[in-house]
Amino acid sequence: MKKPSVNGERLIESLETMARIGATEKGGVCRLAGTTEDGDARNLFVDWAKKANCDVAVDQVGNLFCQRRGRHPELSPVILGSHLDSQPTGGKYDGAFGVLAALEVIRALNDSNIETDRPIEAVSWTNEEGSRFPPAMMGSAVFTGALKLSDALSAKDLDGCTLQQSLDQIGYAGSMPCGNKPAHAYFEAHIEQGPILEAESKIIGVVEGIQGIRWFDCTLVGEEAHAGPTPMPARRDALSGAAHLVQQIEAIANDHEPNGRTTVGQFQVFPNSRNVIPGRVCFTVDMRHPDPNSLVSMKDSLQAQFKLTCEKTKLEGKLEEIWYSPPTHFEQTCIEDVEHAALLHQYSNMRIISGAGHDAKYMAEVCPTAMIFIPCKDGLSHNELEDAADDHLIAGAQVLLEVALTKAMETE
Amino acid sequence: MKKPSVNGERLIESLETMARIGATEKGGVCRLAGTTEDGDARNLFVDWAKKANCDVAVDQVGNLFCQRRGRHPELSPVILGSHLDSQPTGGKYDGAFGVLAALEVIRALNDSNIETDRPIEAVSWTNEEGSRFPPAMMGSAVFTGALKLSDALSAKDLDGCTLQQSLDQIGYAGSMPCGNKPAHAYFEAHIEQGPILEAESKIIGVVEGIQGIRWFDCTLVGEEAHAGPTPMPARRDALSGAAHLVQQIEAIANDHEPNGRTTVGQFQVFPNSRNVIPGRVCFTVDMRHPDPNSLVSMKDSLQAQFKLTCEKTKLEGKLEEIWYSPPTHFEQTCIEDVEHAALLHQYSNMRIISGAGHDAKYMAEVCPTAMIFIPCKDGLSHNELEDAADDHLIAGAQVLLEVALTKAMETE
Repeated sequence: MKKPSVNGERLIESLETMARIGATEKGGVCRLAGTTEDGDARNLFVDWAKKANCDVAVDQVGNLFCQRRGRHPELSPVILGSHLDSQPTGGKYDGAFGVLAALEVIRALNDSNIETDRPIEAVSWTNEEGSRFPPAMMGSAVFTGALKLSDALSAKDLDGCTLQQSLDQIGYAGSMPCGNKPAHAYFEAHIEQGPILEAESKIIGVVEGIQGIRWFDCTLVGEEAHAGPTPMPARRDALSGAAHLVQQIEAIANDHEPNGRTTVGQFQVFPNSRNVIPGRVCFTVDMRHPDPNSLVSMKDSLQAQFKLTCEKTKLEGKLEEIWYSPPTHFEQTCIEDVEHAALLHQYSNMRIISGAGHDAKYMAEVCPTAMIFIPCKDGLSHNELEDAADDHLIAGAQVLLEVALTKAMETE
Repeated sequence: MKKPSVNGERLIESLETMARIGATEKGGVCRLAGTTEDGDARNLFVDWAKKANCDVAVDQVGNLFCQRRGRHPELSPVILGSHLDSQPTGGKYDGAFGVLAALEVIRALNDSNIETDRPIEAVSWTNEEGSRFPPAMMGSAVFTGALKLSDALSAKDLDGCTLQQSLDQIGYAGSMPCGNKPAHAYFEAHIEQGPILEAESKIIGVVEGIQGIRWFDCTLVGEEAHAGPTPMPARRDALSGAAHLVQQIEAIANDHEPNGRTTVGQFQVFPNSRNVIPGRVCFTVDMRHPDPNSLVSMKDSLQAQFKLTCEKTKLEGKLEEIWYSPPTHFEQTCIEDVEHAALLHQYSNMRIISGAGHDAKYMAEVCPTAMIFIPCKDGLSHNELEDAADDHLIAGAQVLLEVALTKAMETE
């Protein structure tokens, strides 16, 4: 048996060819889920997979499975993949790298004429980004039972078009029931979408899990008044209180370093007039940590700081938690497989926690799962300037090949 | 000669009758400049003035002068007044009180058969609010030469209608040249629009001047990044920097107490998305002080704090002064006349600085000027809930009568 190895040139060429579909002027891509561009990307992927002798199947939510047969067709497959849809001003590696690295694993196994015990499937999940049809990670959520098929298919874009209609239009409304089969393991290769690997000069991120997320909506209410005649001590300025609270919220993350993160991303001031003291401010809080206990402590701090701010600034307000996504811990042997594969190839590596959500989050609920990160330039993602080094892309695919092969040779 | 005294009942009744024009459900008024409601209010005022034997004249910008003749028609008149237009959700006393108090002065002089040396004119200035046609204080600005007539008449509302067209429609596009005559003195009675008189339990505010105003536009630029994968130390969060600066801006006012005021009224965050670290924040600064040197020192502090914030938070930015309106100091003898009149009637009183702009600001540039403030409930104004006590309204009109009579008896 020839020692299998990915063909780096082929991988990079495939990534470049794929990046031409929906290419933007600034070097990124726009391939919103269910659009013609998404359909074209799927067609290209299917074409390549068929040329690699894969069996192609599409489920009812449009998830696209390309199977390389194993010695024992009755054994559950090892699934590898990510997504081909993008943000409106997305980068060419977010998602596409994981799908085409999975394809390259299959191509490399073909090159070496290796027969695995289990089937290996390269999957492209439908609508991971959620940019056109909320929520995000839709295909994997339906596959794993976290979201109802009917809810996913009836999700509408801003023009009122449903996901069902868009899948019909591009020819990817499949007939296979969603989640009809168990998976033996799931691996997803992805750019980090953050600056850590680059800062630490590591090639491979051995992803241990995904941060838990709490989302809050906060409103502070004071009293609108004229900027001119109202003395400072008589004011109940909602923006003044909000500015104080924004700084306290930042401090909560710093009190839970290095993994705690807080972001106030949406922030609106009313009546938003130059010479009127703001009477109301509404803003969001995004709070993340890999440890659920820390997320409880961070939430407690937020509530305490909110209360203190209202008292101190004579404001009234409301703080409401609107979403909680618990931390995900990937499976220990899968994590170790990734680490061993990196060591085997002498790729510098480190353990890392994913700050963003991925389809692996849902897959981790139904089968042993882990992820492989590679660095992205300046930590930039969801940005047309997103970039990654060829060597790193190839290294990530090589690690994916190693772990896939290990799992696909497990007969139990 | 009978000692002249305002007829309180008549004043309050006139205010109530006027408040029915453009009345809103919440007890305020909507009489935007140049609308049918503005026309109706002018018609009512003209009707009352004619019944009080006044000569009515309208200038080219629609300013409405109702003159009670004096013994010496060649002497310049004493002008009293304010405005009849309102904010979209305005109160019934802002402006209307000053106009109808002026009318009541004329009526009271008629009752007492007093002949003054100089003519006395009750004026209603066009478009003081500037809500429909910017800028504010338009009629008095044109009258005093601070604004060109053609610029005023070509000002457009959001539907593209010009002030000229709106004046034509309501029949108040006059033929008299603007500012064709000198004035001997100008007095304006007005609700305070702030909480100071009420807090100090004073009936009359002896207004010494109007605060100077500086307006700034400020932009802070960091880097958009994902809320999840970006560690706190790697962030360049524009909102974090802006929150810090907002608090420093508040501190600048507190460092210049009791008269310094700063307000951040307009505040916008980009891209304003829940899970994206803000890359850019734009906001306004409204800075006020009655002393020009303090306004220089406040501006210096703002520039220094802006620079410090950029350095400390790794942000870039721009701070631009877009408008400066210097402080107005009313004329000393006019101020003293107001104070003496209050003392004469044993009205509790205090010296006060106007935080808001008024037509008196422009008139002060061309003739001896002062203002008379009365308290408004809870300091509320530009609000349909604006309210004032009958006793205070009557006291304000009585003071206006005294100072008008004093000035109208000056033959030099």
